[in-house]
Amino acid sequence: MTLTLQDIQTYRAFAEQLAEAAATAIAPYFRTQMDVEDKGRALFDPVTLGDKAAERAMRDLLAQHYPEHGILGEEEDRYVGSSPLTWVLDPIDGTRAFITGLPLWGTLIALNDGQYPRIGVMNQPYTRERFVGTPEGAWLNGEPLKVRPCASLAQAKITCTTPQMFDTPQLALFNSVAEKARLVRFGGDCYAYCMLAAGHIDAVVEADLKPYDVQALMPIIEGAGGVMTTWDGGDAQNGGAIVACGDKRLHAEILALLQK
Amino acid sequence: MTLTLQDIQTYRAFAEQLAEAAATAIAPYFRTQMDVEDKGRALFDPVTLGDKAAERAMRDLLAQHYPEHGILGEEEDRYVGSSPLTWVLDPIDGTRAFITGLPLWGTLIALNDGQYPRIGVMNQPYTRERFVGTPEGAWLNGEPLKVRPCASLAQAKITCTTPQMFDTPQLALFNSVAEKARLVRFGGDCYAYCMLAAGHIDAVVEADLKPYDVQALMPIIEGAGGVMTTWDGGDAQNGGAIVACGDKRLHAEILALLQK
Repeated sequence: MTLTLQDIQTYRAFAEQLAEAAATAIAPYFRTQMDVEDKGRALFDPVTLGDKAAERAMRDLLAQHYPEHGILGEEEDRYVGSSPLTWVLDPIDGTRAFITGLPLWGTLIALNDGQYPRIGVMNQPYTRERFVGTPEGAWLNGEPLKVRPCASLAQAKITCTTPQMFDTPQLALFNSVAEKARLVRFGGDCYAYCMLAAGHIDAVVEADLKPYDVQALMPIIEGAGGVMTTWDGGDAQNGGAIVACGDKRLHAEILALLQK
Repeated sequence: MTLTLQDIQTYRAFAEQLAEAAATAIAPYFRTQMDVEDKGRALFDPVTLGDKAAERAMRDLLAQHYPEHGILGEEEDRYVGSSPLTWVLDPIDGTRAFITGLPLWGTLIALNDGQYPRIGVMNQPYTRERFVGTPEGAWLNGEPLKVRPCASLAQAKITCTTPQMFDTPQLALFNSVAEKARLVRFGGDCYAYCMLAAGHIDAVVEADLKPYDVQALMPIIEGAGGVMTTWDGGDAQNGGAIVACGDKRLHAEILALLQK
């Protein structure tokens, strides 16, 4: 399905409405003491009451305005709509940041047209920062975002949320990239991808990501002039092992290392 | 030298004035493209123009108001005053966070009376958060801070800025703590210590810290009811390998592991 410019504008405004509903639902839970439920995965994976409340708020708005659209969210079952359009939702990406009080988590909202994520929003309500990407560009609170040039790893600032996200072979590959980089920083979550779009980070190299972890970020990074693929250079929208770069030359250098 | 309650109030207000001067000096440099100078240490250790400008601004204010006080800062030589009082300054703690655009860096300001840091300020101008600690308590933007109870590592959320800060034996000891913790998060810098004071993190375990990395944080953590020592339980003010905890029971459990 091809979205017109008018469609893009309409759905972008609606995506921002979803972000605001999520922020309202989450606000009572950030930096409050609460119990955190363990999903029982291998790594501790907290999910908060805010996560669930925010996804419910967004699904309620979608049911009200676009009941024909599909929904893929982190917290509830997939909803298959009659339209090829699907909203891809992660109400709180960066749950560890969230429960340790750090303002690096975000609400991720993507609109996928059945082929590719075309609109992406990352909303950080505590810092009042909203990152938006469309085929027309990318913005932070309305100000255009642009990646910075970075010709090689030797000049690159790279980030990764945690080395714990890699399995053993992946960690060896990540380390082969990290040891050539100018600077490595851990702990960024979705916020790091937005800083890449803003030209402050040159590459994010991660693994074990879900579709709802990546789809909202792709239009932001691509709208700012960057590139985001799997480690083997494929389409990033299904998640997995992902590399995002501001400069295509750096992307080629990192891919060559990751494929060894 | 014993500071009176009146002294504490006077110097706390002055410390906040220093924080504002530093914030003004730093503002033009956060999230702008710039060259970063390498100090030539083993790990890449960026120092920004903002770092230098902020320390100069604080030293100018000190020379004007308290020329008799000593100054220990990250960027310039130590200044020995005729008074036992020394201001301990780190204009931008968390330089990696700073140059990747993440709002987790802070300006650290401590007043040491010749025995111990009595007043501490951590100022984060982008999020407009100012953490202050004195013998009277600790506050975030005037609201009291209080650590949370956490009886054991199995319930604990722990953080560390980066595993790269440890040497090999230290990393093994850190891992022995991390594997028993409920949750481990990397990438917090001075902000993580303040989230500990606010009751969102239970322990910060780090190494390779300088006196100006820790002295401002000690009154904040202790004022909020927490404890901060070296890995062997000694006075933290000279830096080195440091553990901060919100709960003394957790502190005892972690110290026992770190001394093996």
